[in-house]
Amino acid sequence: MMLTRKFGWAFGVFAGTNFVLLMFASMITTFISPAAAGSGIPEVKAYLNGVDAPDIFSLKTFFVKVVGCIAAVSSSLCVGKAGPMIHTSACIASILGQGGSRKYKLTCKWLRYFKNDRDRRDLVTCGSGAGVAAAFRAPVGGVLFALECVSSWWRSALLWRAFFTTAVVVVILRALIDICNSGKCGLFGKGGLIMFDVTSADVTYHLIDLPPVLVLGVIGGILGSFYNFLLQKVLRVYNLINEKGHVCKLLLAASVSIFTSCCLFGLPWLASCKPCPAGLSEACPSIGRSGNFKKFQCAPDHYNDLASLFFNTNDDAIRNLYSAGTDNVFQKSSVFLFFIASYFLGIISYGLAVPSGLFVPVILTGATYGRLVGMLMGSHSTLNHGLFAVLGSASLLGGSMRMTVSVCVIILELTNNLLLLPLVMLVLLISKTVADVFNADVYDLLVKLKGLPYLEAHAEPYMRQLTVGDVVGGPLQIFNGVEKVSNIVHVLKTTGHHGFPVVDEPPFSSSPVLFGLILRAHLLVLLKKKTFLHACTLASIDVSKQFSAEDFAKRGSGKHENIEGIDLTAEEMDMFVDLHPYTNTSPYTVVETMSLAKALILFREVGLRHLLVIPKSSSRAPVVGILTRHDFMPEHILGAHPFLLQSRWKTIRLGKSNLIELFSGLC
Amino acid sequence: MMLTRKFGWAFGVFAGTNFVLLMFASMITTFISPAAAGSGIPEVKAYLNGVDAPDIFSLKTFFVKVVGCIAAVSSSLCVGKAGPMIHTSACIASILGQGGSRKYKLTCKWLRYFKNDRDRRDLVTCGSGAGVAAAFRAPVGGVLFALECVSSWWRSALLWRAFFTTAVVVVILRALIDICNSGKCGLFGKGGLIMFDVTSADVTYHLIDLPPVLVLGVIGGILGSFYNFLLQKVLRVYNLINEKGHVCKLLLAASVSIFTSCCLFGLPWLASCKPCPAGLSEACPSIGRSGNFKKFQCAPDHYNDLASLFFNTNDDAIRNLYSAGTDNVFQKSSVFLFFIASYFLGIISYGLAVPSGLFVPVILTGATYGRLVGMLMGSHSTLNHGLFAVLGSASLLGGSMRMTVSVCVIILELTNNLLLLPLVMLVLLISKTVADVFNADVYDLLVKLKGLPYLEAHAEPYMRQLTVGDVVGGPLQIFNGVEKVSNIVHVLKTTGHHGFPVVDEPPFSSSPVLFGLILRAHLLVLLKKKTFLHACTLASIDVSKQFSAEDFAKRGSGKHENIEGIDLTAEEMDMFVDLHPYTNTSPYTVVETMSLAKALILFREVGLRHLLVIPKSSSRAPVVGILTRHDFMPEHILGAHPFLLQSRWKTIRLGKSNLIELFSGLC
Repeated sequence: MMLTRKFGWAFGVFAGTNFVLLMFASMITTFISPAAAGSGIPEVKAYLNGVDAPDIFSLKTFFVKVVGCIAAVSSSLCVGKAGPMIHTSACIASILGQGGSRKYKLTCKWLRYFKNDRDRRDLVTCGSGAGVAAAFRAPVGGVLFALECVSSWWRSALLWRAFFTTAVVVVILRALIDICNSGKCGLFGKGGLIMFDVTSADVTYHLIDLPPVLVLGVIGGILGSFYNFLLQKVLRVYNLINEKGHVCKLLLAASVSIFTSCCLFGLPWLASCKPCPAGLSEACPSIGRSGNFKKFQCAPDHYNDLASLFFNTNDDAIRNLYSAGTDNVFQKSSVFLFFIASYFLGIISYGLAVPSGLFVPVILTGATYGRLVGMLMGSHSTLNHGLFAVLGSASLLGGSMRMTVSVCVIILELTNNLLLLPLVMLVLLISKTVADVFNADVYDLLVKLKGLPYLEAHAEPYMRQLTVGDVVGGPLQIFNGVEKVSNIVHVLKTTGHHGFPVVDEPPFSSSPVLFGLILRAHLLVLLKKKTFLHACTLASIDVSKQFSAEDFAKRGSGKHENIEGIDLTAEEMDMFVDLHPYTNTSPYTVVETMSLAKALILFREVGLRHLLVIPKSSSRAPVVGILTRHDFMPEHILGAHPFLLQSRWKTIRLGKSNLIELFSGLC
Repeated sequence: MMLTRKFGWAFGVFAGTNFVLLMFASMITTFISPAAAGSGIPEVKAYLNGVDAPDIFSLKTFFVKVVGCIAAVSSSLCVGKAGPMIHTSACIASILGQGGSRKYKLTCKWLRYFKNDRDRRDLVTCGSGAGVAAAFRAPVGGVLFALECVSSWWRSALLWRAFFTTAVVVVILRALIDICNSGKCGLFGKGGLIMFDVTSADVTYHLIDLPPVLVLGVIGGILGSFYNFLLQKVLRVYNLINEKGHVCKLLLAASVSIFTSCCLFGLPWLASCKPCPAGLSEACPSIGRSGNFKKFQCAPDHYNDLASLFFNTNDDAIRNLYSAGTDNVFQKSSVFLFFIASYFLGIISYGLAVPSGLFVPVILTGATYGRLVGMLMGSHSTLNHGLFAVLGSASLLGGSMRMTVSVCVIILELTNNLLLLPLVMLVLLISKTVADVFNADVYDLLVKLKGLPYLEAHAEPYMRQLTVGDVVGGPLQIFNGVEKVSNIVHVLKTTGHHGFPVVDEPPFSSSPVLFGLILRAHLLVLLKKKTFLHACTLASIDVSKQFSAEDFAKRGSGKHENIEGIDLTAEEMDMFVDLHPYTNTSPYTVVETMSLAKALILFREVGLRHLLVIPKSSSRAPVVGILTRHDFMPEHILGAHPFLLQSRWKTIRLGKSNLIELFSGLC
């Protein structure tokens, strides 16, 4: 149609297909699995921190994520595929870890050994590493991404398990590329194991090349933090719109799709046509699906450089920007326009109700930015523009995601140019340091916007002023070692707590003594089995005969038993149950005068869900309260102790503006 | 001399210089700083685990390590430089962390802020990463080595600090290489930033190449674990000899030096001369210091391939083995002889009283082994022999050091061939898995042989059978909140404990209550300042006026105050001191019925030195005992509970033979 100059028709078909694809992605996300929207990395990160949000790893989410991501990326929207791939891999890991999906009758018996928190967490960590490895064909980068960005706890055993996972990924990738070398698989396998190979570029740089690289890093850091800032603002507006209902969600997606189509189709008209360079190995101008010199509206033997960037896959656009020896292919004005467009399109595309990643848009925008800097430097630098593009990607990634080692290795594995390593490291460190001055990294912002109670590793300074006793509160529900069934049912129905202290009182001990901690999930199993006692005595039966380990195995995420689902007769309600055999007799405890900061370290480092607080003096009840994740949240602490807001401790690390944002983010 | 066929003289000069150099290294190590012997990685690893062995980071050790390592490597001994470089960097980090060396009047005031355990540990971690980065020109590998192999605790902040350190290292390295490009610096800078560049080798491999690679991995794992086994046996014999006195140490070093010289000079006679290949860019045969085709005893235009391996620097030998297109340069018999020689010379060279590393010998031996496998495969594999050599190095490193990600990245950064990555990952995983069946990794074995109380991250299964109360024991020394000076002096003199619980008794509280924990170091500071009270009352003075933070700052390693160094009059001995302001009021505590395994997790994850045990019932004294690192050592627990030796729990993870070895290693 472009060849016959039917531009209106061409735009109609282009915008129409984009619109249909995005609407499809948006509809399956909205109606089937809203949890599949967005990149999924914040959810995975929060899960590995201990926040088990409902439905994030279900089979439904998995399918919507895969199909929706393909549709969203195909719809020319400025979104990436890396984040959804990481979430997808984590889904697979989690579904494997819970022994398949019982709802869809896909179960596997020998997988039941993974039915506990730790193994499932390990699997999800390895899964997210595998996602990165598959997305960027970067196995070592995947391990490091899982370590640096996603996981909250790390063991040395996990390191080589994640390494094994990504090794399998890369071996299979390599085999598939081998098979697809014949060209039967379309674009897949193009570029081999190294996606954006820049080895051919002979890297020579000297001390005089440092100043432009430093400037690039500083500006990249500022651009990255500004990206985060804008993204946060846009997401807040989008959240308001999305909350208004399904129709609003779809309308928002529709308008962004149309706007994107307009930008993509309209902007190339601003660029002037360039004559094709002589002696090319590929066709110029190209008309078909692929090809790096798009004709667009130009005369024969001319190409539109801006259209070449817009109407290519993201991967090809990045490869073009990275490649050396193409210093004259692009015009300054085109690259500038493309930079502005991809920067802002990336921001407005993220918050829609479709699976969408942030990684690839940031890499693409960064590459354009770097190329632009390279062009502006002109002959002042001996580095070629392709290398500037690589450094630009690094600086924007460093400024927005704030990862260092993993981004460095991913870029290394993407480009296969080790000689560039010192420069990439420098740029990353500078941009991260600059951006850290302004705001937090993008995943932290997303986690906070979603209101997930993410537990930071470090204690805020004001926590040193408080003791554990200052924050623990609320009515405490305690069970006796042998407890009446009706009491248990009443407590489970009236509270939402997940753990209860068990206290032995006379006649089972001489004075009230803390026996341990029992979980709600285990109480529900007990109530369901109905092995009750008629009198308040210790049970004499052998527990191991009545229950198997599987009864107490961890349920799949979001699949908890419900107290309402258990029917008990009035007679049963009057009976007793001996909790001793089912109680965790070694709960972690802190004394009530313990510093809150130190309790947080214990809570976080050991990876707890409940921390029992015991009294200092011996004359009181044997347990004062239970600390959970929510008791360590700054909002909870500062809500209970507002004077800390004024104290000098707070201002050191938690600027007032941040705090207000933090609160408004929760309202 | 070889040219004039004076072989006796040539051997004399060769063996003589080797002998003198090694004797020099051995003498400075023996007489100035015995802590500088060996690779130093086990000591750094133990330090980061919390074992502060005396003198390992002193300025003396630093100098002996640097000078001795240069002499030892120059003396043709089969030892590496990587381990000593890591220790050296850790020394620099630690000396910086303790604010310079006061003994040698090299201090810097603003460094005093690092005078605490955590900052010094972080610095040493970054330092060890920098050492690897400098030794292998592998910045990312350095970070990962520090993470995977050396450190026991890891925070995300540490990741990018270590990354920053290695970035500085690599930028400086790059600048120095730039300056040295003119050839003014001898061999330094040869090979550029990539030491063993194999990019030129066009890597193509297919599924049929997998079987030989798998076999290579399996045999590499067996060879690696056998290496560890032999090393352990040899070290035990050497330890017996070294304990007999300085003369025995020197005699041992002397005999190994002479034996090594004999091997190096004698074995090349077994190899037959080969005619020089045509069309070489370098001289063949070469006579001078460098050159890859040594003439040795051969006729003109012939070279001795075994001599070419022996009489080269380790780096050049590895580069030759790695290089592609040299499949016909070496004979099978020569490579086999070289493999046997370097395997066993590496083992017998390590335990001497000289600074010596294990990394480079293992890489060299592995490269030879891989090359040998490649030769035996012959035409059955499409991989060239150089790539087999790279994989051989990986397999032996995986089999002996058991690192995965870090070795993988180090090899990647050494060879700059990313396409090889899938194969290297596979080989590493296989060899590690195979070797793990037989024994522990080499650094664990070395730490155990040195008798350092290294705290493992995981709890042994038998620990789940025990409670904390089962292992805590011995007379407990408790101080009152206001304590008599003579009591403190007596306790400090008669015990070696480093921490004491402080208990408030009437009249300061209504019943005995645990107030906190005070450290020996802080008590010594108090005794030295002599701010005593005349009566048993609470001090009313302002503590912050009497002491500055620096008084309580952590001393340099091994530089503790001594109770014997404090003179107190009889009058002062009768006075009191109020311990309340100096006591840590938030010590971590566990209840005595807590499972030992869970207490270990708390102890290890939070990184404690003392863990207070409090009673379960309220009627007893407020503190039962203190757990330290030694209470968690298997020897201590199994010594106190010998029945566990017979129980089935032990046999699951701790084979009987291992256990006996473990004990005999300590005797």
